[in-house]
Order: sequence, then structure tokens, then C-alpha cells
Amino acid sequence: MLYQTIASELKTKIDQGLFRPGERLPSVRLLSRQLDVSVSTVVSAYQVLEQDRHIEARAKSGFYVGTKTLARPAAAPKALGLQPARLHISDTIADVFANTRNVEYTHFDVAIPHVDLQPKAALKAASNRVLRQKFDQLLIMANRPGNLELRRLIALRMLRAGCLVSPEQVLITNGCQEALLLALRSLTSPGDMVAVESPCYYGFLLALESLGLQVVNIATDPQTGLDVAALEKAASKWPLKACICSSSYSNPTGGAMTDKDKQRLLALSEQHQFTLIEDDILGELSHEGERHNAIKSFDKHDRVIYCSSLSKSLSPGLRIGWMVAGAHHQQALELHQAHSSGAVAFTQLLATDYLKSGHFDKHLARVRPLYRKNIERAQVIIHETFPDGTRTSQPQGGFLIWVALPASIDAMGLFKKARQENISFLPGVVFGRKHFEHCLRLSFGSPWTEKTADQLSKLGQLASSMA
Amino acid sequence: MLYQTIASELKTKIDQGLFRPGERLPSVRLLSRQLDVSVSTVVSAYQVLEQDRHIEARAKSGFYVGTKTLARPAAAPKALGLQPARLHISDTIADVFANTRNVEYTHFDVAIPHVDLQPKAALKAASNRVLRQKFDQLLIMANRPGNLELRRLIALRMLRAGCLVSPEQVLITNGCQEALLLALRSLTSPGDMVAVESPCYYGFLLALESLGLQVVNIATDPQTGLDVAALEKAASKWPLKACICSSSYSNPTGGAMTDKDKQRLLALSEQHQFTLIEDDILGELSHEGERHNAIKSFDKHDRVIYCSSLSKSLSPGLRIGWMVAGAHHQQALELHQAHSSGAVAFTQLLATDYLKSGHFDKHLARVRPLYRKNIERAQVIIHETFPDGTRTSQPQGGFLIWVALPASIDAMGLFKKARQENISFLPGVVFGRKHFEHCLRLSFGSPWTEKTADQLSKLGQLASSMA
Repeated sequence: MLYQTIASELKTKIDQGLFRPGERLPSVRLLSRQLDVSVSTVVSAYQVLEQDRHIEARAKSGFYVGTKTLARPAAAPKALGLQPARLHISDTIADVFANTRNVEYTHFDVAIPHVDLQPKAALKAASNRVLRQKFDQLLIMANRPGNLELRRLIALRMLRAGCLVSPEQVLITNGCQEALLLALRSLTSPGDMVAVESPCYYGFLLALESLGLQVVNIATDPQTGLDVAALEKAASKWPLKACICSSSYSNPTGGAMTDKDKQRLLALSEQHQFTLIEDDILGELSHEGERHNAIKSFDKHDRVIYCSSLSKSLSPGLRIGWMVAGAHHQQALELHQAHSSGAVAFTQLLATDYLKSGHFDKHLARVRPLYRKNIERAQVIIHETFPDGTRTSQPQGGFLIWVALPASIDAMGLFKKARQENISFLPGVVFGRKHFEHCLRLSFGSPWTEKTADQLSKLGQLASSMA
Repeated sequence: MLYQTIASELKTKIDQGLFRPGERLPSVRLLSRQLDVSVSTVVSAYQVLEQDRHIEARAKSGFYVGTKTLARPAAAPKALGLQPARLHISDTIADVFANTRNVEYTHFDVAIPHVDLQPKAALKAASNRVLRQKFDQLLIMANRPGNLELRRLIALRMLRAGCLVSPEQVLITNGCQEALLLALRSLTSPGDMVAVESPCYYGFLLALESLGLQVVNIATDPQTGLDVAALEKAASKWPLKACICSSSYSNPTGGAMTDKDKQRLLALSEQHQFTLIEDDILGELSHEGERHNAIKSFDKHDRVIYCSSLSKSLSPGLRIGWMVAGAHHQQALELHQAHSSGAVAFTQLLATDYLKSGHFDKHLARVRPLYRKNIERAQVIIHETFPDGTRTSQPQGGFLIWVALPASIDAMGLFKKARQENISFLPGVVFGRKHFEHCLRLSFGSPWTEKTADQLSKLGQLASSMA
């Protein structure tokens, strides 16, 4: 059939580098004119390529050359064989983070949006309004669960993730990290076992280490998230108290669980009586416009403590996080009182004013495609400059990519070489110590510049020189 | 001798209510004219009364009628007989604090300065400067140990407490509460024993409860603070990990330890190898102008973790606390990273700007005498309206008074009655459960008004009706 011939030709051109990974293919209409075939033939050809995962369809945007798929990280399945263990990663993390503030560096390390990708003008206007209209409130200690209007606006946003919660159920925290720590402290005692994604965001590992908890690593697919079957085996073997899960989108991979897996996960938590701690901090940054449902949205039996913040979607400077702790609300509130004297009034008022203005959706509509474009550009350069055998995750949201170098290359060694070139990233060890020594996390939360491309290429060349 | 006759007469007049507790006596010169005696006779008479503690001399201010002295709280010596124990006060505290935000209430409960006793204009000017000049920095996550310039300014202030620390030793926290929790988490594991003043600030008790620590109550004199001899007995008997001490000024009593006792305390901590956690949050609010030395100022062997904040001296809305953890600095820093994502950039910049402006000393010079005057006015009304046998502490700094009712009166019962009159205070139980059932803490951090006097009188009448 003609369409198969065309599909095969296109595949060859992709392999030969005419169309590069992450690039947009010609539109159906244009290609039908160029190849002088019918539109339906081109559509059929594209469908063949899509089925084989050589290309991807994106809503309202056309077809794109697929970026190479990172298979499940080599070490992850092994994780199940490991005994639960206490961690000792804080030294490594302190070393790795020594230069995160150095302005000379190109920062592929910290996972925060650059100020130029924050809605500066709107936030500044909101700040000025708050100072003008509510200055006295700034000087008062904010009340404990947080500003009620802010909690209402947050509850409204959670509706978009499919969660129907009341403002009273929302507890404002100092970022998502404090929410997570309060959740863990509500649920566990030292020595208890907690399951985590593997690779897992280092902040969670630090919290687990600091509380003397035992960590059970669960294999996690860079594309489809936590492996529920692997978690089931772990839950059958060990008395898990909790499982921390970043269903959409995982940090460091950018993967997302399917709704079906989320429901299986909930059934499992019900069956084995552990609590799910859901981290939804990247949830608003879907690359496809509509955000994914939170696990919490399927939660009928109060098995989920939901944690999130505005740090990735709006501004990390606000330190506005929150949790919906359900049955554990009162306990979390009491721990919060022992923990600190509460969130800052100014940033709560600022977030309230900003969210009320209705600007947030416009802002998200602006940055989501920018982050996606950043990821695509990065994929192309990684494809071109990193050593053969390098695999990358295919993020469905956010601005993080998880890169697996050929197993012989030590990412910590690359990290040290890169430092000398003023390039920084996070080596895989901080996401689970020994399992990811050949991996790295790259962050693309800044406006893309020529320097971004140059430094990423340089990093690829450094890695290649180690192959 | 004539001066003895005059002293005796004045004593009678004080007892008859001509001069009331807390009131200023006529100046020496005026009284010598009024009584037609020599200045030196009046001076001698005043000295007799001062020796007998009927009146008090205050530097550059004259002589005042003494307020009744609260002897050591009845229950405190018993504390030593108690076994170390885990606490369960968080339920009580949640109940007691249910109305702390109610604007209908007269709040003798929360220990925070009213907005009108904060330097509003200067803080607003500083806020506007920060927004205008450093807006981008607000949107960035503040770096971990905190803004270096702020840490430098804080180190400079600590000089006034006799402490020579470098900016690098200062770790900025979310208020003093977070500093205390990080100190405890650095030093202890669940089940460990920690000594506290008795009565003890409820926030510390909440932190101890939340960490599963055992509490050893140490008798504490409302005037001279922690009883070092009592602590010595406890340290000989039990393996203390730490002792929390508010040397100047204690919350709830307003008492202050002598420098000699501070040094004895340090020697004890050295001998028994426990760490002192010093809370200096009220240190700037001396009633006598010059502030007391911190325990830290005598600390030659790094036995003190110093914690403080700007919440009482400047504004609780900023949530700027700090700790100087010495040998435990790195550990505290790592725990801080697991704990939350750090202090808010805006309030750090605001505090930096404000402290740099040099306005803080002017502000303190304004509020210290106001707080002292509030305390004096309150003492007079308590003297007049509370039941016979009521004793009060004589604060040397801050705006808190600790009141011991006759033992038959239940302060929690009074608390409930007072609620119906829209009057709130803190019943003694939150400062150590069963020991202080007849006690209450009153806070006078607001501008004194007629309503303050009326409501305090009403509280006294309610208490009297229970006698």
C-alpha cells in the first residue's frame, strides 16, 4: 500500500536525521502536496509511525518525531530485592547543592521556574495592592490553618484535578516539603517503612532520613510512573505505613500514572492499610493543556494525604504549600503548631490576591508550551551530543528530564567535570543513592537561550569523552 | 529618727491605698518640700522602704510602689519528685486557642505585640523599598541558611546580648518555634529526657510532646528564673539530653536569671554533658533599658544552642527567627532542608532593610517603657480586683504577667466564665498541665485603653466570685 511505503520512507528519513527527535513533522496537508499524495494517505502513514512510537500526535499541534524512550531504569527492578533501609544521603546532597546559587553557572540543577517565567508584572501589582490595602494584616501572625480565602481558592483549583474538598480541609504550609514532613510525622514513627518511587525526589529522601524511616524502593517507569505490581509485592512482604507518590508528574522523570493505575494504587492502599501521600506539585504543568486527575480525585475511603504548592506553577518565592490530610487533619494541625509558627501572612495575602485576579490560567497557558518546547529542544541536543546508548525520559509535564547514560559512565564524575565548565545538574545518586550512578536529572525551567544550547552541548561532549 | 517615722507613715499610706502598687511616688525633692524635711531625710526614708521591698528604685525614673511578690509557685518544687513523663497537652491547647482570633474578645491570651506597638510606618517604608528595588529576589527561593546580610545584622544585634558570633553561624528559621524544634531534633531521639522551666512556654511543651520526648520539670522562680540547684539534682538523677531555658525573660513569668546563675548553669551542662537550648525571644524587651546578657555570652565550650526571633521585639508577621547552633550547625541545616523549603525571601529582605535603617533601637526605646507601664497598670488592677491571696510575678522585661490565684480557684473554670464576657487569657495548665491549675498568664502587648482596664477588672471580679 502507498501509505506503508511513505511511512517506511519517512522512518528512514528520521533515522538519517532529516527530521530530528522532538521536531514537528510537516503538516498532513503540506506533506500531501509535497509528495503529491492524498491527505488520507499521509494520515494513514503517520498513524503507522505513531503506532510504532516513531512519532507522536499532539492535540491541535500536529505530529512530532518521538524522542528516544528510556526503558525502565536498569536498577529499579532490583530495588524490590533490597531490604528496606535507612538512608544516608544528606552529605552527598549538601555537596551537590554547594553551587546552586552561583550566578556564573548554567543551572540544569534546581527545579524551579526562572523569574522570567513567573508572572512578574501581575505578582508585583498584587504585592502593591496588598501593601496598600492590607498592610496591618502583614504584621499579624497568620492564623494556623491559613488564610481562609486562600484555602477556598486552592480548593477551587483542586477541582481541576478532580478533587472536591472544602476550604476547611486545606492546611497551608511552608511549601510542599513541610506538608510532606507533616504527613510523614502524622503517619509514622522512627523505623517504620515507607515506599517511594525509584528514582525519588531527593527532598522526600531527606525527610525520610531525618525521621529515621526505612525506605522501600518501588520500581518506577519513567513514562507511566510507579509500578503498581511492584508495590503490591512490597506491600505483601513488608508492613508499609505509607507510600509517597508523584502521580503527575514525577520528579525526576516527568512521567505520569494512568487513571487506571491510580485506582489500582488506591485499592492496594485499602487492602494493605497504608496511606498514600500524593505529591501533586507539578500537576498544573501538563504539556497537553488539560491536567491529569490527582489520585485524591479517586479517593473514596480517605486513604490519601494530598500535598502540593505554588512553587513550580507560580513562584517558589512565595513558599505557599498546602495539604489536605483528611482524617489526619487535626493531627497535622497540632504537629504544625509544634513545627513552626505558621506560614507568612504577606505571601498568603499575595497568593490570595493573585489567584483571585484570574490571571493564573493565562500564566499557565503561557508557560506550559514553553516548558514543553524547552524539553523538546533539550531532547534534540541530548540526542546529538550525548554518548551513544544514552536514554532519556519523555516528560508529560513539567520541565525535568531524567537521563540514563551508558552504564559505564559515572554521573558523579561528569558532575565534577561539568563544575569546571560552570555547568550544574543533579547526579542520579541523590535520587536513591546506588541505583542511579549513571543517571542525571536536568532541569529546563529557564527561558531557552543560545547559552542553554551551548552548555547542554558541552555537557554532552563531556559525557561522550567519558564513554 | 525622723526618717524612720516618715518611712513608717509612707508605709501606712501605701497600705491604705493612697499610693497604689506600681504607681510612682513623689520625687525626693517634692516630698521634702511637702513634708518640710530635708532631702536627705526623704532619701533615707525611701531607702528603708526599698530595703523592705515596699517600694522600688528605678534608674532615672524615681521610686515606685512595689507590686506584690509572687513567691515560688507552690507546685514547682514538687516537680522534682515527678518522674520524667511524656506530655499530652495538645488537646487542651487546641481548645484554649479556639478563640485567639476573635476580634470581639479582649485578648490577654496571645503573647504578641499589637500592630499599633509595631513600627508600622518604618516597616511599610521598608516594604515599599524592597518591592521597588528587589522584586525579582522575592520570587526566588531564599538560600538555605538565610540572607547573609540579615545574618550579619542579627549577629550585630547579638553583640548587645554579649554574644560574639559570625554571620555564618546564624541560621534563619520560620520563627523561634522552628529553631527550637530543629535544636531538639538535632539533639534528641524519642524517649530522651529534656529539662524545662516550670512553668514552661506551651510551644516548647508541644514540641516536646510531638517528638515523643520525656519532660523533666525544673522549679523556676518567677523572679530569678530556673532554679539551678533543682536542675543539678535532676541532672544527677537522670540522663538529660538538653535543658530549655528562657533566661531573660521567661514566658510566662517575665523573670530573669542572674549572670551568676547563668554561669552555674553552663558549668552544670558541662559537667553533666547536656546541651542548653536558650530561648532569648523576649531578651530585647528589658524594662530597664539595658538588656540582660544571654547565657550564650558566657558559653566557652559550645554548650548552648541559641534561639530567638523578631516576633516579640519587632513583628510576628515577619516570621523571622534564627538559631546559632555551634557544633550542631551542619546538622540543623540538614534537618532544616528536610523540614521545609526555607524562610520567605520577602520578609528576610524586609527585616534586612529595616534593621539596616537603624530604626530598631528607637522602636525598642519607645515600646519598652510602654510595656513596663502596661504591666504596672495591670498589677494595680489585679491588686484591686482579684481575690485576696492572689500573687503575681514581677516581670523584668516583656509584657507577660503570671498570676497565681488562691489554690481553691480553678483557672480553667475562670477561663470558661471569662469566655462568656469575651475575655481571653491562658490558663496555667497549658504551661505544665497539673501543676498550675490555679494559675494564669496575662499578656499586655496592646496599647492600654479604658477597655483594657474594664475587662481586667471584670476578670478580677469573676475570679473573686469563685473564691
